[in-house]
Amino acid sequence: MRISELKLHPIAVADGPLRSSYGLHAPYALRTIVEIKTTDGITGISETYGGDGPLAALEAVRSRVVGMDPFQLASFWQYLAAESEKEKADTAGGRSQTWLVPGENPLDKHTRTNAAIEVACLDAIGKALGRPVCDLVGGKVRDRVPFSAYLFYKHAGGGGMGADARDDEYGEILTPEAVVRSCRQMINQYGFKEIKLKGGVLPPDDEIAAIKALRAEFGPTFPLRIDPNCAWSVDTSVRVGRELKSELADGGYLEDPCAGMDGMAEVRRRLLAEGNKTPLASNVATTCFAHVPEAKRTDGVQIILSDPHYWGGIRSQQKLSDLCEVLGLGMSMHSNNHLGVSLMTMAHAAAVCPSLTYACDTHYPWQTEMDEVVVGGRIKFENGSVVISDKPGLGVTLDYDQVARGTERYNKLPYRKRDDEAEMQQHIDPTWKRVLPRW
Amino acid sequence: MRISELKLHPIAVADGPLRSSYGLHAPYALRTIVEIKTTDGITGISETYGGDGPLAALEAVRSRVVGMDPFQLASFWQYLAAESEKEKADTAGGRSQTWLVPGENPLDKHTRTNAAIEVACLDAIGKALGRPVCDLVGGKVRDRVPFSAYLFYKHAGGGGMGADARDDEYGEILTPEAVVRSCRQMINQYGFKEIKLKGGVLPPDDEIAAIKALRAEFGPTFPLRIDPNCAWSVDTSVRVGRELKSELADGGYLEDPCAGMDGMAEVRRRLLAEGNKTPLASNVATTCFAHVPEAKRTDGVQIILSDPHYWGGIRSQQKLSDLCEVLGLGMSMHSNNHLGVSLMTMAHAAAVCPSLTYACDTHYPWQTEMDEVVVGGRIKFENGSVVISDKPGLGVTLDYDQVARGTERYNKLPYRKRDDEAEMQQHIDPTWKRVLPRW
Repeated sequence: MRISELKLHPIAVADGPLRSSYGLHAPYALRTIVEIKTTDGITGISETYGGDGPLAALEAVRSRVVGMDPFQLASFWQYLAAESEKEKADTAGGRSQTWLVPGENPLDKHTRTNAAIEVACLDAIGKALGRPVCDLVGGKVRDRVPFSAYLFYKHAGGGGMGADARDDEYGEILTPEAVVRSCRQMINQYGFKEIKLKGGVLPPDDEIAAIKALRAEFGPTFPLRIDPNCAWSVDTSVRVGRELKSELADGGYLEDPCAGMDGMAEVRRRLLAEGNKTPLASNVATTCFAHVPEAKRTDGVQIILSDPHYWGGIRSQQKLSDLCEVLGLGMSMHSNNHLGVSLMTMAHAAAVCPSLTYACDTHYPWQTEMDEVVVGGRIKFENGSVVISDKPGLGVTLDYDQVARGTERYNKLPYRKRDDEAEMQQHIDPTWKRVLPRW
Repeated sequence: MRISELKLHPIAVADGPLRSSYGLHAPYALRTIVEIKTTDGITGISETYGGDGPLAALEAVRSRVVGMDPFQLASFWQYLAAESEKEKADTAGGRSQTWLVPGENPLDKHTRTNAAIEVACLDAIGKALGRPVCDLVGGKVRDRVPFSAYLFYKHAGGGGMGADARDDEYGEILTPEAVVRSCRQMINQYGFKEIKLKGGVLPPDDEIAAIKALRAEFGPTFPLRIDPNCAWSVDTSVRVGRELKSELADGGYLEDPCAGMDGMAEVRRRLLAEGNKTPLASNVATTCFAHVPEAKRTDGVQIILSDPHYWGGIRSQQKLSDLCEVLGLGMSMHSNNHLGVSLMTMAHAAAVCPSLTYACDTHYPWQTEMDEVVVGGRIKFENGSVVISDKPGLGVTLDYDQVARGTERYNKLPYRKRDDEAEMQQHIDPTWKRVLPRW
């Protein structure tokens, strides 16, 4: 069994005008669908970040991938790690995702590429053997993977543009009432049992009010998390932590309130000194394995946000789970805009990680049936969870017409890179700049 | 694919009168050959510790194993981990292998059992798919796994008893000259490129002389390690480290000179203060994942000695490799008396661990063809390495006549447990006691 072909399908996926501290989501999110074919006629697929950067990184490994035995993933990673060593100079000064969104952080380039190829290989192997991907890496520890209701502030309007514009399913969300309404709507539809608010958009008091409104509406059995993407100073982070002490308790957390491990560690120290044990989660201070012992040593992060897409794939996700277990750290999962192939990847990755005890984030509710590329349409959630079935591989196959439509949309777009600041300037405020800390 | 049958073959394997700080090896080492059969007619095998304890632990999981899908190893471990939680009281006060030999340490009971079942399952899966075990866990990072020349002090005599006694291949080894002679003999036969001396047997100055004689004979391209199994005090450990500073450099190490992480850390501090960077290795202060961050924090151990047999199996071995990589620790591999099934398990486990940069220990040269249970007889070494072939599973199958002979020997033995102190008292010195530190 050898890989005979590597196909890369750049696609654009309609996305609403969601806000974060990075700025504004563009009308289309960019993704890449990766397809490998094997000499025995099997197709394996994966989904990863979109645009020129991720695509070029995948193109760069084409000659290494074609001809490869899909089982030889450790040596493929060794090859990429060696490339990474050579390129070290390119990433000097950049750290993690403080300024760069996932998919554009040069530090993740090789782990992203590895993940895209690994998942496609595991899918192919699973399909060849008639086994789900989770079985190929030791078997699942849970049959259902819970996801969280991932709420965003947003402007009015659905995703897409012009004739391709989507319905505005959730409407404008810029007040605590609208946050609660969107959450109710999402929970009614998907059954989620944990709630995350993407913050860092409105002044902290408004976001505190939104979290308090969510707690008032849903009660303490729905753990709450808020993620301002480093928009706050240490002082503000401590203040918000203090004001939301009871709301973020009971399985919730405060995610990346401020930038940098030192800042996170200071927030933690100051909160602990007040008797506030709210855990801090991060996918900014910690984006690779080297950051994890540092997180433990400084106590700057208590919950590591995994993501098979940029940590290196499903086996790397397990590695992170093992590491968190040994170091006594919690683990949750980060998300980006994605379709069903990524959702199933996240679900299989989560299903095999014992330390993943929080519901995973997902942007899935913000995408629509019109953009889904898997046969049968959008993946169903049961009571907020994705069920891990016995279907071979990731359990999904590509709808090639839908992929072609996604590529057609992609080809019409003037941009090839996610740039939330530029979107913000174009659509909302020409003078807007990302400033950290903003408050 | 389900497991339809679990067969346990207790066997006895002739072993010479080897010495260590634990005492004397008995005329037969005890092992257990584990065999699973699957509903589609595949047989998977593994080899583990022998005697009543390990056998009872395997018997205890029989009802959980029979009927199990061999791919569902993570949930099997979860089951064992839950059992381990329940039994925690039983292991109170015991830590690691300071007093108890591997195979008899109650702390390892469940990871040993897990390993025996996991390896047999991976072997069955590999045989079903026509893939070597290493491919099932991500693929190898090396084609050849180097092993070390593992030298022992010993009394005259081969293994076995009475009419079943083996030739004394290496003769008595109780002087530096005999150590060098046995090493030359072993290297001539197997081609090993690294050398380990099991110490803690003669007064430290005699063992220092042996290491110096080895260096004089083989030169600095053969890294040297010495392992007195905690026989020395902190002062003695520092003195030996000082006197062997140049001999243990260049890829060598000082293994478990004294008992306990605190003692190890003190030895390290004092050696470093003298500018002596000789790394300390351990399979006593560190025998499970919880010990590894402690090793890093205290700097008591710089090289963790892995062993798929008691760390939980091949995937646990990978987990340890990952952990060592992230924490910046070295990794080597420990050994016990074993036959070809274990040797291939160790080789596959080592082949998939990038951080395993030292030659693995093996007792294999101390066993003989007469006891080997794999078809085709003893595994061949090429220039000191075991070659990882593309043969399915572990690459070996059982010679059932040989297994039956091993079981016949086992059934005749009066003992069901390794007890090196009792052997020492019976054969060498009735007053002998294991004393730590002895020097």
